[in-house]
Amino acid sequence: MGYPDNFEGFAVTDTAQWNTVKKIDFTPKPFGPKDIDIKIKACGVCGSDVHCVTGGWAQPDLPVIPGHEIVGEVVRVGDGVENGFKVGDRVGVGAQAWACLECETCKDENETYCPDWVDTYNDKYPDGSKSWGGYSSHVRIHEHFVFPIPEALESNDVAPMLCAGITTYSPLVRNGVGPGSNVGIIGIGGLGHFAIMFAKALGANVYTFSRTNSKKDDAIELGTDHFIATFEDKDWSSKYARKLDIIISCGNSSKNFDLDGYLKCLKVHGKLISVGLPEEPFTVSPGDFIKNGTLLGSSHLGSRREMLEMLDLAAKNGIKAWHEDLKVGEKGIGEALERCHNNDVKYRFVLTDYDKAFN
Amino acid sequence: MGYPDNFEGFAVTDTAQWNTVKKIDFTPKPFGPKDIDIKIKACGVCGSDVHCVTGGWAQPDLPVIPGHEIVGEVVRVGDGVENGFKVGDRVGVGAQAWACLECETCKDENETYCPDWVDTYNDKYPDGSKSWGGYSSHVRIHEHFVFPIPEALESNDVAPMLCAGITTYSPLVRNGVGPGSNVGIIGIGGLGHFAIMFAKALGANVYTFSRTNSKKDDAIELGTDHFIATFEDKDWSSKYARKLDIIISCGNSSKNFDLDGYLKCLKVHGKLISVGLPEEPFTVSPGDFIKNGTLLGSSHLGSRREMLEMLDLAAKNGIKAWHEDLKVGEKGIGEALERCHNNDVKYRFVLTDYDKAFN
Repeated sequence: MGYPDNFEGFAVTDTAQWNTVKKIDFTPKPFGPKDIDIKIKACGVCGSDVHCVTGGWAQPDLPVIPGHEIVGEVVRVGDGVENGFKVGDRVGVGAQAWACLECETCKDENETYCPDWVDTYNDKYPDGSKSWGGYSSHVRIHEHFVFPIPEALESNDVAPMLCAGITTYSPLVRNGVGPGSNVGIIGIGGLGHFAIMFAKALGANVYTFSRTNSKKDDAIELGTDHFIATFEDKDWSSKYARKLDIIISCGNSSKNFDLDGYLKCLKVHGKLISVGLPEEPFTVSPGDFIKNGTLLGSSHLGSRREMLEMLDLAAKNGIKAWHEDLKVGEKGIGEALERCHNNDVKYRFVLTDYDKAFN
Repeated sequence: MGYPDNFEGFAVTDTAQWNTVKKIDFTPKPFGPKDIDIKIKACGVCGSDVHCVTGGWAQPDLPVIPGHEIVGEVVRVGDGVENGFKVGDRVGVGAQAWACLECETCKDENETYCPDWVDTYNDKYPDGSKSWGGYSSHVRIHEHFVFPIPEALESNDVAPMLCAGITTYSPLVRNGVGPGSNVGIIGIGGLGHFAIMFAKALGANVYTFSRTNSKKDDAIELGTDHFIATFEDKDWSSKYARKLDIIISCGNSSKNFDLDGYLKCLKVHGKLISVGLPEEPFTVSPGDFIKNGTLLGSSHLGSRREMLEMLDLAAKNGIKAWHEDLKVGEKGIGEALERCHNNDVKYRFVLTDYDKAFN
């Protein structure tokens, strides 16, 4: 199998028409000794793809090719690659394309917090090259951010794990979640459904909070031990007061978000880690945190080691994304972005049929 | 020395006239077997006294007698007291008067987070009795919240430590501050001046942030290693990026508070603990925390054990409040409340001459 010098992909060119993509050719970053070129086979559609193309977080650098939950096949390996990758390997790429790997932060296995981190798309490398995502024929990525996919996991089942999965897995393990931990999960969606499965696989007692009962059966099937519909039970925050060691908030909206109620459910010095990134801010007073000395924070993806451990845990426990597949192309991407924007997805779209879209 | 059945104190009776007190008689809670009556000798004036009497946090239960940095002499000891207190002992009382001491939280030495905690003043005991503070002749407190004062510490020097001191000491030690830690302190006032002294005594490198240079000399005398005037150095948050393990914010205002700049100064997963409780809330987005996975929270006082350790550390290191003394009474209290409200205090008022005010 050969490899092309230029790649093709489906780009959004106007935030006012964020659900419309067109096929473009693009030049990836110059191929470096640590780089790997991957022919893409599947790519999940992340909520942040929508935030990006609508300009909801910030104006994107158009044209933008989204996609950072990529599975594909290695087609080219740089001279300096040390992790044993070879042409033909099935590999994954998440939401990060690069870090310096030399700073103190990187050396502490906090490469996802490297001050110079580069996102998989809509970002710039230190040399000024633009990064391009997975709604495309190929992706070129530094080997540190390329992950071997265990044989037991199907490409379409694992793709969404590479961003949504690791985003929930990392704060769970970094905060010591294990057998006997009481873990709250807010919101059942792309992030939340992984949070439930991983918290359960780690041995925790899982408490899932949703506004209504509409996703109750799904939450139970995903493995939650308790389900709380906050709009239907006015006393929920008193009932679950001080029960939880940690809450992972996967909510996508700060409207009607009862932060004070959730903080009340935490044990003393418990943390609410919001991996959902609502476009509207929260209003908080230090006094909200004083009653049980709680903390509010966030988390960014997870380290290479955590990614490999997560994939291993998923393989051993048969954890798979719940996904609906759409063909990569103008129609499929348009539908995915629009339905994702409308929360009409259970719980992830995966773009497929790459071989037909790109010759 | 005998003990009275009723006590006297200086009360605020109207939030519109919050800087005016008048002497009243009051009946303390019924004397219980674990209670200790203390004849007051000195009492610090805390910023929260002002927030309370102005109604800035919430409408107080008038009349209210503020004061929760109390040093005095034991005059009566309940039958069931087990900590060896005896009449004549010099003791201190802080901002908490009671906790159940039976719940899981209390048993974990988190009694300052007990769901049923009772504040030293402007609060109610489970039996409905009101709590009354230290601008008064005596105070009646459960022995768990009465602390022996080391001989090396003068009453007027130690009184402010019993709230302002422990409020900063507890989050430092609970977050592992010790030799080599890099600790940021925001705001030099009643809380902040203790935070600098305690962080230094614990062996940390101390970085003090203030808006201007006006308190620079004081901060250096208090022991800070670095001083940053944030209004005078536009690049401060870049210069100190990722330097700090923890920040204790003692600021009293959320206006012009550059939360994002401070979070930038934290190492990965560092915490900003706001022990200052501004009346106006902060506006925060989870995205503010994502760059280095930081956390925002608060902290409430400190456990009995931490209080005893803090007093011991203060005695060994010669740590004293920086205080200006005023005579307890209508004039002295009025001046203290008003100047405290105007931030015209370096860095604590202590009310004294109790023997003259109360017969």
